[in-house]
Amino acid sequence: MKALHLEDGTISVKNASRPRPKSGHVLVRVRLAGICNTDIELLRGYYGFRGRPGHEFVGERLDTGQRVVGEINLACGKCDWCGRGLGRHCPRRTVLGIVKHPGAFAEYLTLPEANLFAVPAHVPDEHAVFTEPVAAACEILDQVRIAKGERVAVLGDGKLGLLIAQVLAAHGAEVHLYGKHENKLKIAQKCGLEARFWRQKPRFSYSVTVEATGSPAGLRAAVAITRPRGTVVMKSTVHGETGLDMAPAIVNEITLIGSRCGRFAPAMKLITKGRLRLDEMIDSEFSLEEGQAAFERAMQPGVLKVLLRP
Amino acid sequence: MKALHLEDGTISVKNASRPRPKSGHVLVRVRLAGICNTDIELLRGYYGFRGRPGHEFVGERLDTGQRVVGEINLACGKCDWCGRGLGRHCPRRTVLGIVKHPGAFAEYLTLPEANLFAVPAHVPDEHAVFTEPVAAACEILDQVRIAKGERVAVLGDGKLGLLIAQVLAAHGAEVHLYGKHENKLKIAQKCGLEARFWRQKPRFSYSVTVEATGSPAGLRAAVAITRPRGTVVMKSTVHGETGLDMAPAIVNEITLIGSRCGRFAPAMKLITKGRLRLDEMIDSEFSLEEGQAAFERAMQPGVLKVLLRP
Repeated sequence: MKALHLEDGTISVKNASRPRPKSGHVLVRVRLAGICNTDIELLRGYYGFRGRPGHEFVGERLDTGQRVVGEINLACGKCDWCGRGLGRHCPRRTVLGIVKHPGAFAEYLTLPEANLFAVPAHVPDEHAVFTEPVAAACEILDQVRIAKGERVAVLGDGKLGLLIAQVLAAHGAEVHLYGKHENKLKIAQKCGLEARFWRQKPRFSYSVTVEATGSPAGLRAAVAITRPRGTVVMKSTVHGETGLDMAPAIVNEITLIGSRCGRFAPAMKLITKGRLRLDEMIDSEFSLEEGQAAFERAMQPGVLKVLLRP
Repeated sequence: MKALHLEDGTISVKNASRPRPKSGHVLVRVRLAGICNTDIELLRGYYGFRGRPGHEFVGERLDTGQRVVGEINLACGKCDWCGRGLGRHCPRRTVLGIVKHPGAFAEYLTLPEANLFAVPAHVPDEHAVFTEPVAAACEILDQVRIAKGERVAVLGDGKLGLLIAQVLAAHGAEVHLYGKHENKLKIAQKCGLEARFWRQKPRFSYSVTVEATGSPAGLRAAVAITRPRGTVVMKSTVHGETGLDMAPAIVNEITLIGSRCGRFAPAMKLITKGRLRLDEMIDSEFSLEEGQAAFERAMQPGVLKVLLRP
């Protein structure tokens, strides 16, 4: 089968053998996959990654033909974390396309059966492929109590920022999305969000702020617009050390919450019910053979979701 | 009256006029004051401070003769924050000895009557003078739910770390205090705490960790010993930018909570009931005239509380 291979900062298309599912795992034919900022960071050297990336996908089970999406953390199923339903934090986990498990930028992948979620027939592949990042956005609602009608700031109008803003708005929050890109703020407006230019940031105004800028300056800005005793949800994994002054967060007793992957069930529900505008989130689609061009496109500033079709 | 004056990184003793209490304020004769790390940071230039420092004190009301300690935030009493009992976050507040209100390193100070708390007769000045930092330690219990018997790590065996460890132990937590100073770890043991050398730090072990090292490296270490989904209470106000990699906190979904001043009532209760060993926390006592020598002593590494007696 064809598969993308990442090594020493370059992406290539390889002929690889079809993966063999272990006991309890299922072979899945990938129908469509999405390039995430994490994939771009892997290409840039984060985690010293070398192998087959890709963790956002929709596919088809080879055994039953069922269309599925898949939770990316492969947990041991036996430890305390797994027992508490938090396999996403299992210390022995591998992670699809990120940590020691070949990813979705290929014709086939394997995942444990327990990781798979059926996709209802009326949901197109182009929406189902967003389940993983939508789950990451939904994670915020599992971590922070946000009342209906509560004003929430989302910083960053990138792919994740736009999804988070939509998910929080669907939950009932009054979302103010702060961004720097006119085209993306227009998308936000189409999605019914209040979109604001970055420079209008008011100080000490929000009880909950979500930082999704992907930039080291984002956290400082998030703390500055959050009210004393408020909460900043940290969604951007900016790797490597960045200069931070924590004194304002301490003086104002801000709570900073790290937030990563989320549960698929609420994400699939939002997508199935058509509560999110996902067509607007797609920039372009490439074949797997065009993998390098796809990554080049995805790495351009201001580009939304780039899809790969095997 | 005599008062310490801080300007351009130097401390001097001045003859100043006795402060005149505004309406609703009370004139207090200072009996004993404590030098806090914040005072040392003011001397080093934090806040561009210039004036009379000092915010830890026990004194005597000139009008009634009552012995008192005092809450250091002078709130407006009218805004939303004040209405919610959170004058400590009032945006119009001044702060005794820190922000636009002359401090306690003097023979007299003024504070609003509402800020004063009576000291019971049996509590010696040498204990009452700790009320403000003990309140800052108690603040943690207002912010984070810590179950009786829960294992909590406190990082840092300085003045604040030792007080925090004692307060959390008095609350019923199983406290492990991590430090680098043999003499101070011995004090911790005398206080009935489990004291451990810094190098023994276990990874991913605590659901609650308090960072009180006063060093930029402290936060990184605190995140490293905290379990996924655990909480790090940030108590060290390290000023200026420091290099931080937030990725581990995000991947492990750690909650970081900034924590500053606390309520005086629970602090006074702990001190009054003799639940804390405070005599062990005192390094030395100086007269106000010896202010410079007192600061020099307080700035030496590993030194505990230095007191000033006007």
